[in-house]
Amino acid sequence: MKDVAGRAGVGLKTVSRVVNGEPGVTLETRRRVQEAIDALGFRRNDSARVLRKGRTATVGLVLEDLADPFYGPLSRAVEEVARAHDTLLINGSSAHDPCREQELALALCSRRVDGLLVVPAGPDHRYLEPEMNAGIATVFVDRPARGIAADTVLSDNHGGARSGVAHLIAHGHRRIGYIGDLPRIHTAAERLRGYRTAMEEAGLPVRPGWVSLGSTAPERVRRAAEEMLGGPDPVTALLTGNNRVTVTVVRVLAEREPHRPVALVGFDDFELADLLRPAVTVVAQDAAGLGRVAARRLFDRLERTDLPPAVVELPTRLVVRGSGELPPAG
Amino acid sequence: MKDVAGRAGVGLKTVSRVVNGEPGVTLETRRRVQEAIDALGFRRNDSARVLRKGRTATVGLVLEDLADPFYGPLSRAVEEVARAHDTLLINGSSAHDPCREQELALALCSRRVDGLLVVPAGPDHRYLEPEMNAGIATVFVDRPARGIAADTVLSDNHGGARSGVAHLIAHGHRRIGYIGDLPRIHTAAERLRGYRTAMEEAGLPVRPGWVSLGSTAPERVRRAAEEMLGGPDPVTALLTGNNRVTVTVVRVLAEREPHRPVALVGFDDFELADLLRPAVTVVAQDAAGLGRVAARRLFDRLERTDLPPAVVELPTRLVVRGSGELPPAG
Repeated sequence: MKDVAGRAGVGLKTVSRVVNGEPGVTLETRRRVQEAIDALGFRRNDSARVLRKGRTATVGLVLEDLADPFYGPLSRAVEEVARAHDTLLINGSSAHDPCREQELALALCSRRVDGLLVVPAGPDHRYLEPEMNAGIATVFVDRPARGIAADTVLSDNHGGARSGVAHLIAHGHRRIGYIGDLPRIHTAAERLRGYRTAMEEAGLPVRPGWVSLGSTAPERVRRAAEEMLGGPDPVTALLTGNNRVTVTVVRVLAEREPHRPVALVGFDDFELADLLRPAVTVVAQDAAGLGRVAARRLFDRLERTDLPPAVVELPTRLVVRGSGELPPAG
Repeated sequence: MKDVAGRAGVGLKTVSRVVNGEPGVTLETRRRVQEAIDALGFRRNDSARVLRKGRTATVGLVLEDLADPFYGPLSRAVEEVARAHDTLLINGSSAHDPCREQELALALCSRRVDGLLVVPAGPDHRYLEPEMNAGIATVFVDRPARGIAADTVLSDNHGGARSGVAHLIAHGHRRIGYIGDLPRIHTAAERLRGYRTAMEEAGLPVRPGWVSLGSTAPERVRRAAEEMLGGPDPVTALLTGNNRVTVTVVRVLAEREPHRPVALVGFDDFELADLLRPAVTVVAQDAAGLGRVAARRLFDRLERTDLPPAVVELPTRLVVRGSGELPPAG
């Protein structure tokens, strides 16, 4: 920085302001400093800031899918907690790909984030151990880490699904189907488990055709719903495993004859669920709560490195709106 | 890296693999290398990778709001183009704050992104000139940059709004209101301009109470809609300026007496618009197209630095579904 200051004919403080993007420097002076930087052949980086503070005041968030509305409130909540700590949030999407998750997480670590929040896409998180040992606080959100012990914040997937199915049973249904995400995904497996628990507690059998796990792509979900509603052993009610599945099933049900209504409870709330007819009964997660609790835990861990890892489970909430209370047809 | 290799008793290639998070290293060896790195007092960073390639194979995206569904398809499209170029995408949210936009954009630059896509929240982008001069390709999306000449990809906001209002006029409406975002925002101003153009072209006056610009917070939009629908000079149709405004207005209209329906055209499509009753007529933007065109422009610019800045405008599309074709009540 001394060389740059000398070449540009300004003080060190001015160089610092330009390097850190701070105000208080005229455009002309900024250009002179930048020319000096270019001429001397190096690029601004965060090392000055790091040396001064020991931290870069940035945290990273690895999500699964930027277009899934579930992650909107979650990441916004994380962003608000980060902002309250004068910290920037940068995030990336794994697009459900474990390799991409690892690439992104390590890329964020190499960019000197102070901490990392990860929504796991993959089955093994030991790749993060060296980074965690080097001091990057890491909290897992929505699904647990695999292969390492770490702070985790989850929804009560099992209990939530169980309450959704119990609600359908309480309204007279005996023939209930479950359409969910890929079985390797923790949330899908836990919600399936909750479905099975509720059916078992009511002494109801689960027919083979009544469980369908797989991609949430609309074509796959549509076929699964049509098979459960047609065929020799049709269901009279459905529990859908997340908002993506629910939205496709809502469309399938809207196309059917209205005199044979099918009851629906969706896991995950979604925008306009209350304006549809019938309005959709859901098991709502607190996506913002997940983000907020995880982010606060991250900052706690940054202040106190002696905290043992903890798993926090947030309750879900059944929101009764109409679709889950329709009686069995016939 | 030589010091680390020596201390850990491994080759340079192995150190490189550990530093870059590549596979092909046992956990035990990885720990030994990491211990050597820690003991020698430095942290992994991207400098090795940069020296080797000259680029960090990462691009940054600064959005306005992680929870707005408009940005979902946009960022996912950017991510897909980045992936096709073996590049990671990291993004951040300005939360509509110009200072935050600047902080984030500069933080991403300081983390050595090769390029930057910015959805501007602020009124002045000269702060990015030094970075652009230093070689960080920058493309602006959805709104133009201010104070600098740069690649920009926009929707045809004026033409889209004009077509939406012309559609309402064609269905018999003369008393049409516009509820939009803050006037300082380019898209809101352009859509207002399109509304005014269509009214003028049809020889229709715009009454003072028929234009309401401001925050998209539900309470503000609700009040605006109620005032336009009540009062001495009520409207019979509305053009809503973006998906956030549309969703709130849909709720307001759903609470009203069904025998006095109000026609609605919303700017921006949104999920389940077709399942509402009435299904919502929209002026749809191609959010994914905006992201895709902007990202491709970014990579073009990275390959050919002599490209002059260009502004690309993508057309909108009127999607007729029901709400925009309701005749004036009475």
